[in-house]
Amino acid sequence: MSAPCAARILRHCDALAACSEAPGALTRTFLSAEQRAANARVSAWMQEAGMQVRLDAIGNLVARYEADAPARPALILGSHLDTVRDAGRYDGMLGVLTAIECVRSLHARGRRLPFALEVVGFGDEEGVRFGATLLGSRALAGTFERACLELRDAAGTTLREALLAFGLDPQRIGEAARAPGTALAYVELHIEQGPVLEAEGLQLGVVTAINGFSRLALTFAGRAGHAGTVPMALRRDALAGAAQCVSAIERIGRATPELVATVGRIEALPGAINVIPGEARFTLDVRAPSDAVRERAVAEALAEARAIGQQRGLELRLERLQDQAAARCAPWLIAQLEDALRAEGLTARALASGAGHDGMAMRAIADIGMLFVRCKGGVSHHPDESIAAEDCAAGARVLMRFIESFRPGGG
Amino acid sequence: MSAPCAARILRHCDALAACSEAPGALTRTFLSAEQRAANARVSAWMQEAGMQVRLDAIGNLVARYEADAPARPALILGSHLDTVRDAGRYDGMLGVLTAIECVRSLHARGRRLPFALEVVGFGDEEGVRFGATLLGSRALAGTFERACLELRDAAGTTLREALLAFGLDPQRIGEAARAPGTALAYVELHIEQGPVLEAEGLQLGVVTAINGFSRLALTFAGRAGHAGTVPMALRRDALAGAAQCVSAIERIGRATPELVATVGRIEALPGAINVIPGEARFTLDVRAPSDAVRERAVAEALAEARAIGQQRGLELRLERLQDQAAARCAPWLIAQLEDALRAEGLTARALASGAGHDGMAMRAIADIGMLFVRCKGGVSHHPDESIAAEDCAAGARVLMRFIESFRPGGG
Repeated sequence: MSAPCAARILRHCDALAACSEAPGALTRTFLSAEQRAANARVSAWMQEAGMQVRLDAIGNLVARYEADAPARPALILGSHLDTVRDAGRYDGMLGVLTAIECVRSLHARGRRLPFALEVVGFGDEEGVRFGATLLGSRALAGTFERACLELRDAAGTTLREALLAFGLDPQRIGEAARAPGTALAYVELHIEQGPVLEAEGLQLGVVTAINGFSRLALTFAGRAGHAGTVPMALRRDALAGAAQCVSAIERIGRATPELVATVGRIEALPGAINVIPGEARFTLDVRAPSDAVRERAVAEALAEARAIGQQRGLELRLERLQDQAAARCAPWLIAQLEDALRAEGLTARALASGAGHDGMAMRAIADIGMLFVRCKGGVSHHPDESIAAEDCAAGARVLMRFIESFRPGGG
Repeated sequence: MSAPCAARILRHCDALAACSEAPGALTRTFLSAEQRAANARVSAWMQEAGMQVRLDAIGNLVARYEADAPARPALILGSHLDTVRDAGRYDGMLGVLTAIECVRSLHARGRRLPFALEVVGFGDEEGVRFGATLLGSRALAGTFERACLELRDAAGTTLREALLAFGLDPQRIGEAARAPGTALAYVELHIEQGPVLEAEGLQLGVVTAINGFSRLALTFAGRAGHAGTVPMALRRDALAGAAQCVSAIERIGRATPELVATVGRIEALPGAINVIPGEARFTLDVRAPSDAVRERAVAEALAEARAIGQQRGLELRLERLQDQAAARCAPWLIAQLEDALRAEGLTARALASGAGHDGMAMRAIADIGMLFVRCKGGVSHHPDESIAAEDCAAGARVLMRFIESFRPGGG
């Protein structure tokens, strides 16, 4: 009865899914009434697990389980409690609820560790409401930018106003911040949100890095023309160039393991069935666990685009939209997570995270580690998001073992 | 002074460009007040050229120059007087005004031919107002479908109402129709609307056929996914398949002379920078002077699309939107036009018309021929549409010679 219970974790995931702004679907955004309701439930579970709970200045739910001596530094566990629109019920929540379940197990056994444990339910990771992600973890990591207070949601409410309406004081956000080095580490359990573990028949994986990404907008400009009267040889078809570039980008992505390259949007202008496209716009999203690999891939893609433009007489316009460095997980945390996996008789598969996570912000104050749980079909950000009960149980067992074997700094 | 005068033709093109619904741009749609104004001017020029003028039942301006004996069958010349939105001033008008100028020359010389001449200024070729093209020439060819009377313009006015407002009787549209075989031929001078003549340094060309076309909509359905978490090898990226198909279509178009194949529209769904496209939709427009060549190219493109779909695990959905057979020009008219070109010391370049023309409708009642005049940069349907005065003069000289040398049926 004192081991972590997967059934309870899943029951709690189901219960939280009922706290939704959308009837018949799960949508729970930062500082909403539904987040308040979810916080109330999670807070009760935290207290039942023997923890002291408080809401921090940005609206993160922070619970603490003291060490065997007072005022010891903490290993921080957690994930986020907000969701995308029409979300699944595991992305974020599973990490918070599994961590609580592990503390409950310690508590039930009357066990205290030589370090404190904190479980954080971050208020905003997805960034749905205000268009800026990681607001919760950035506040906790001390990297919250006050300019974000003026961001507005779709209804025109600023973050500042939403904080006030939630009963929080925007002036005191700084109080949520922890000083670098005061936490022992930040470790997050999360569903994979991808199909790698499933494809390999594995339940869990240890994250090596949260991939960095580069996002660009590319435009080829050629010459529009009548689809009937301009012979092929006299065309400067912008879309034909873009199509060639899309194929090159796929080739580049395939050539390097752990690199992914995606064209998610494309448009041909003027966009009539009988007009040769004079302009073609498309986007590029490149991710890799290594910044050097990512930068090289972006450079290669741009070199291809330039060559295609030159060869076809198309002008190339580039816009670099966003670059985010990879967030490497700490080798000592990877090693301890792998040890825990192996001790549970599981293969210690190391893999990169293609999606972003709170660890990207948290590494400003602490080393980070992540444990991935297989999800069905790699589907996430969708109501079909699903995990097997035995995978949930394996995740909880490994996290439990990791916590109980935890040696700060790998020492 | 009795030869056709290019300066007058161009002056009249300029004058007609002033009859526009749009300030600072040229837009003149079927049965508009501006078309009435244009008709009044053209009608006056027709009368000055010695012709009898009437408005037919659909609103075509029809002028007749009698033969050297009464009630002889006519060689019909002409083109259209309506324009696209923000049009150039030569597309259509040049053919009407050059034909009038040739008749003026005959009239000035007191010359009558053994056949009558008719010059028609078609009221609707572009189809801008009611969304159906060739309304004028279809009425004259007896292929006007009465269901078109219920078509509505953007303001909700039906064609029936617009005819009545223009002073025409929709009940009597049938009176515009000529019986097949009663005209000797239909011959139209038109700007090329493409860049072929310019690229080859030629002023004029003889049209072999108005290309047929096939229009299709293709959709690849794969699996949407997170651009960060799904490895390249596990993707079913619909846009990557579509891009490969766009390249194949271009290759097919390039492989056969006189064939053109165009992808004018493309869309990736859901269309987010960080989501692998689960669906990609694009259009295909294929044209050729030979229906067999066109059909073969469409079949090849679809075979490529199917192979790409199979290889990538993408579902392919097809919609055939439109198929129009090619309208071949009569060899005996091509020969007489070529003779006229050579007699004027010009190269007789034969080429297909990629754009549609009134001849597509007129061939229901008569053999058709077309003479193309070089235009600058191949630009048409645009205010930059432009022709050189010497090319206008060459067109008028060749049309004049063709008319005076015309032997019905090539006999």
